[in-house]
Amino acid sequence: MSNLNGIIVPLVTPLQDRNTLDTEGLERLIEHVIGNGVDAVFILGSTGEAPALSYKLRLELIERTARLVADRVKIQVGITDTSFEESLTIANAASEHGADSVVLAPPYYFTTSQQELIEYINHITGQLPLPLYLYNMPGLTKTTFEPETVLQLADNPKIAGLKDSSANMMYFHKLKYTLRNHPDFALFTGPEELLAESVLLGGNGGVCGGANFFPSLYVSLYQACKNKDLDTVAELHRQIIKISSTIYCVGKYGSSFLKGVKCALSLMGICNDFISEPFHHFREKEREEVRKHLLDLGLL
Amino acid sequence: MSNLNGIIVPLVTPLQDRNTLDTEGLERLIEHVIGNGVDAVFILGSTGEAPALSYKLRLELIERTARLVADRVKIQVGITDTSFEESLTIANAASEHGADSVVLAPPYYFTTSQQELIEYINHITGQLPLPLYLYNMPGLTKTTFEPETVLQLADNPKIAGLKDSSANMMYFHKLKYTLRNHPDFALFTGPEELLAESVLLGGNGGVCGGANFFPSLYVSLYQACKNKDLDTVAELHRQIIKISSTIYCVGKYGSSFLKGVKCALSLMGICNDFISEPFHHFREKEREEVRKHLLDLGLL
Amino acid sequence: MSNLNGIIVPLVTPLQDRNTLDTEGLERLIEHVIGNGVDAVFILGSTGEAPALSYKLRLELIERTARLVADRVKIQVGITDTSFEESLTIANAASEHGADSVVLAPPYYFTTSQQELIEYINHITGQLPLPLYLYNMPGLTKTTFEPETVLQLADNPKIAGLKDSSANMMYFHKLKYTLRNHPDFALFTGPEELLAESVLLGGNGGVCGGANFFPSLYVSLYQACKNKDLDTVAELHRQIIKISSTIYCVGKYGSSFLKGVKCALSLMGICNDFISEPFHHFREKEREEVRKHLLDLGLL
Amino acid sequence: MSNLNGIIVPLVTPLQDRNTLDTEGLERLIEHVIGNGVDAVFILGSTGEAPALSYKLRLELIERTARLVADRVKIQVGITDTSFEESLTIANAASEHGADSVVLAPPYYFTTSQQELIEYINHITGQLPLPLYLYNMPGLTKTTFEPETVLQLADNPKIAGLKDSSANMMYFHKLKYTLRNHPDFALFTGPEELLAESVLLGGNGGVCGGANFFPSLYVSLYQACKNKDLDTVAELHRQIIKISSTIYCVGKYGSSFLKGVKCALSLMGICNDFISEPFHHFREKEREEVRKHLLDLGLL
Repeated sequence: MSNLNGIIVPLVTPLQDRNTLDTEGLERLIEHVIGNGVDAVFILGSTGEAPALSYKLRLELIERTARLVADRVKIQVGITDTSFEESLTIANAASEHGADSVVLAPPYYFTTSQQELIEYINHITGQLPLPLYLYNMPGLTKTTFEPETVLQLADNPKIAGLKDSSANMMYFHKLKYTLRNHPDFALFTGPEELLAESVLLGGNGGVCGGANFFPSLYVSLYQACKNKDLDTVAELHRQIIKISSTIYCVGKYGSSFLKGVKCALSLMGICNDFISEPFHHFREKEREEVRKHLLDLGLL
Repeated sequence: MSNLNGIIVPLVTPLQDRNTLDTEGLERLIEHVIGNGVDAVFILGSTGEAPALSYKLRLELIERTARLVADRVKIQVGITDTSFEESLTIANAASEHGADSVVLAPPYYFTTSQQELIEYINHITGQLPLPLYLYNMPGLTKTTFEPETVLQLADNPKIAGLKDSSANMMYFHKLKYTLRNHPDFALFTGPEELLAESVLLGGNGGVCGGANFFPSLYVSLYQACKNKDLDTVAELHRQIIKISSTIYCVGKYGSSFLKGVKCALSLMGICNDFISEPFHHFREKEREEVRKHLLDLGLL
Repeated sequence: MSNLNGIIVPLVTPLQDRNTLDTEGLERLIEHVIGNGVDAVFILGSTGEAPALSYKLRLELIERTARLVADRVKIQVGITDTSFEESLTIANAASEHGADSVVLAPPYYFTTSQQELIEYINHITGQLPLPLYLYNMPGLTKTTFEPETVLQLADNPKIAGLKDSSANMMYFHKLKYTLRNHPDFALFTGPEELLAESVLLGGNGGVCGGANFFPSLYVSLYQACKNKDLDTVAELHRQIIKISSTIYCVGKYGSSFLKGVKCALSLMGICNDFISEPFHHFREKEREEVRKHLLDLGLL
Repeated sequence: MSNLNGIIVPLVTPLQDRNTLDTEGLERLIEHVIGNGVDAVFILGSTGEAPALSYKLRLELIERTARLVADRVKIQVGITDTSFEESLTIANAASEHGADSVVLAPPYYFTTSQQELIEYINHITGQLPLPLYLYNMPGLTKTTFEPETVLQLADNPKIAGLKDSSANMMYFHKLKYTLRNHPDFALFTGPEELLAESVLLGGNGGVCGGANFFPSLYVSLYQACKNKDLDTVAELHRQIIKISSTIYCVGKYGSSFLKGVKCALSLMGICNDFISEPFHHFREKEREEVRKHLLDLGLL
């Protein structure tokens, strides 16, 4: 059912302030990633700070993104929410504006049993206007889609695949084995540090935050994997780990990944680096450090 | 600043279905708890399933509760949200309808550093129309208010106290010691299983889910603690642990507490036991078990 | 079966170096705690660094302690080990030298299921020459004695009780309720910060590391609890939290508790503060801080 | 310094009972793995149940293994212990009997800071007669060798490399990047499910428990990785995940891996499947299930 493969960019949400989009930045960002060959954009994910945005802003972002992308690549919209009703509202807006699919993690305040998770997913897909990708992100949601749970859900025709952001390759391999009789169920990998191995061993692609500022790196790595060019894979993988060990490790924050990506985009002149609460953007000292790493990568 | 002490009921949200209040049930529930002597009601907390409710429903609940309580006891309103803007909207509604204070846990999708948590709290209190109680609930929010953080926040005149639902008495004692020079900063305890000891050792009261269906038990225990009547304390404490070990342990669910409370209220004819996704109410087998425990407690 | 109640001191192991006892220090330490009224000494526990000591040293410590205590108070000996055989060897030595009971946590390298834990305990008690206290210490052993497990083990006549070092009062209360028909099964509490509430609500006493250097404080608190003298309880409890928040928080180490206790004993002239690998004793800066706190407590 | 590469078998310890080696089983096991091309045997690791064995048995195992291997492949000996002295005793025995290297995880009862871990490792290597491999196994030891810690230790000439059993490829890649200027520092991977990707992306080999009963599978996968034969890699990787999802998942035990491996060896007529406390071997029902899986793999 899914014919999505390759590199999906989980777009940051360019902001002027907490409740105002940086609309010019959004346009430049979309041109940057499409121009460098990504296969899809994913808005309102974790990298997009979706839970921190007001609902009004989320709806505006859907509308503007759809207009700017203009059918050049696929659009995925995150509808994860603690409230069933609010998830539906976002999903309906996504459909109206021509998005291709929606992405849903478990409700993330309470934790649920696997049985209740299955009921929840089957319940909501009954009302969804678009194909759904499950989103496994236990570090933030506290609930895992166990492989047996995914196997049960794989028969639901509304569900196209799963994005795994568990950062756990044991889980990924087990899941792929469990789904061995569902070859059309797509598996994408969240942490870009695991892109190489997941594609080499059967994954459909990656949802790579770094593709916001350096899209060609991830597109090239995906191609090298498909071409079985292991020397290139090793070299590009090493660059990704370098980015992860430098730009995403500036400061002492759990949120350094998001801050690093937005700071890089700001330094590259693509968009504003405002981040909504509870975070704040990098201040001058960290910004200088990111600048140095970008120079080293040849991105400035 | 705070003159709230004693037993606060974290009201369940009586529902007819996912998006419709059980308004008659809400009225009976409020009369039940006020008639049995509780000191305050707290709506839109975890026990109230706040994150699972649509925003429209949250606003309706504030308005109706305020009207039904009619200034007989204090009203607290939960404003915890992942979005700063949406927290403010709820807080403003609470103020308009005459609530006494608001309650705020850290944004619960991302985790934050303590420094960012302090900035977030100071930032939002600058715009809040009502006194604020901090809500420490790391099991659900993944972020703890460290004692040193609370000490820094205790100088903020908008902050009246903290409710601790960590279930960790080591933390509670350490926090109380850290705040030894802030005698007016109120400390309430979440898990009712820890009510006795926290009040005996200096806490201001409890936020007790069981007080929805058995308010007099918690009110009596609080009084016995204040009266230093240790024999009564021991006996009532034992009853609370019995409730916790029976009604809250029916089924194999992480959510048995919430399901047990709503099921008990339904069996007692107080309100509907509908629970919003991702949960569902107890089905017949579990309901029979709860009935048996209520009979044993003399509540049916 | 158990007639042990009150304050048990988990003795530190005074060392001259990694493999040599500070025998004079051991003698002074034993006189200090017995002279101040403790009810029992417990050697080869976590506070005694048992797992870090060579077996030769463990056997020597048993023999010397028994000789120095000379039947004035009860002696407990820790036999926790990852190897069944080595646990038995220590238990047999304890028995030969006249110890009163042994203490056993789950094997702490692998984690076990509750069913295997029950089999293990029943298996080893069949060969033990002395009554056994279970030791619940999941933070270090990774395995909890679930209340239902303890209930099954409570019928084993070799098992006298349980020491709970989980620092989790929810667990303690649940366990006590589960064992309501086993009034002779003794429950002791590990963290001294929880001594007051556990004794007020039905516990048999505490295993208090701070009783190494300040035994009278813990003995007095236990007596105040038994006398239902809540004002004294509150005051002594506050002193314990002060010690916990000062002496046990010096430096940035997970091991500050152990280092603080040994440093205090050294400053008071009782014994050497050598600590075996992987730790080291406090160096001058931390030592000065501990000295200041001891002066403040009136112990220097 | 290290010239070890490829597949290391973490040998199970064949036992007749808790304290008696199955010496004939040990001989058959060693012939089985050497005959199928493994590069080294590693005794007294987690798979070897080292912590559960008496010290007498550990020494006997070293002596017998050395005699049986007779210099045909390299021998590694685990010396992980909570006691510094006992680690040294095992290391000296390993050296006397001609082992090639020793393997050491952090002491696993207490947790240590990274600074103390560095001191501990440098301290013990000063007394070790053989090259050392660090062993990162945080799931059991509760202490991680942070990449920066390993970087500091990499200059210690006694340290040849690290085996990573964290099951965390994010860590593995970060560690490899951190050590980019230490090309001779060897990195081996613990979980066999991650063998393919770690070797494809620069690792030196694997320590594969399944190589006890199916050594040729792991040897072939390693060779396919070195030959950049991605189709064979994918096929053999899939077989490993199948073993992991079947034989290692029999029963509901955390210890199913160890029980599955010993049960397979027993069914194949190689050695006894006795397991020391706190575990027990698979009983008839689970044994039948393992038999079915072995038949399916063509191993019976």
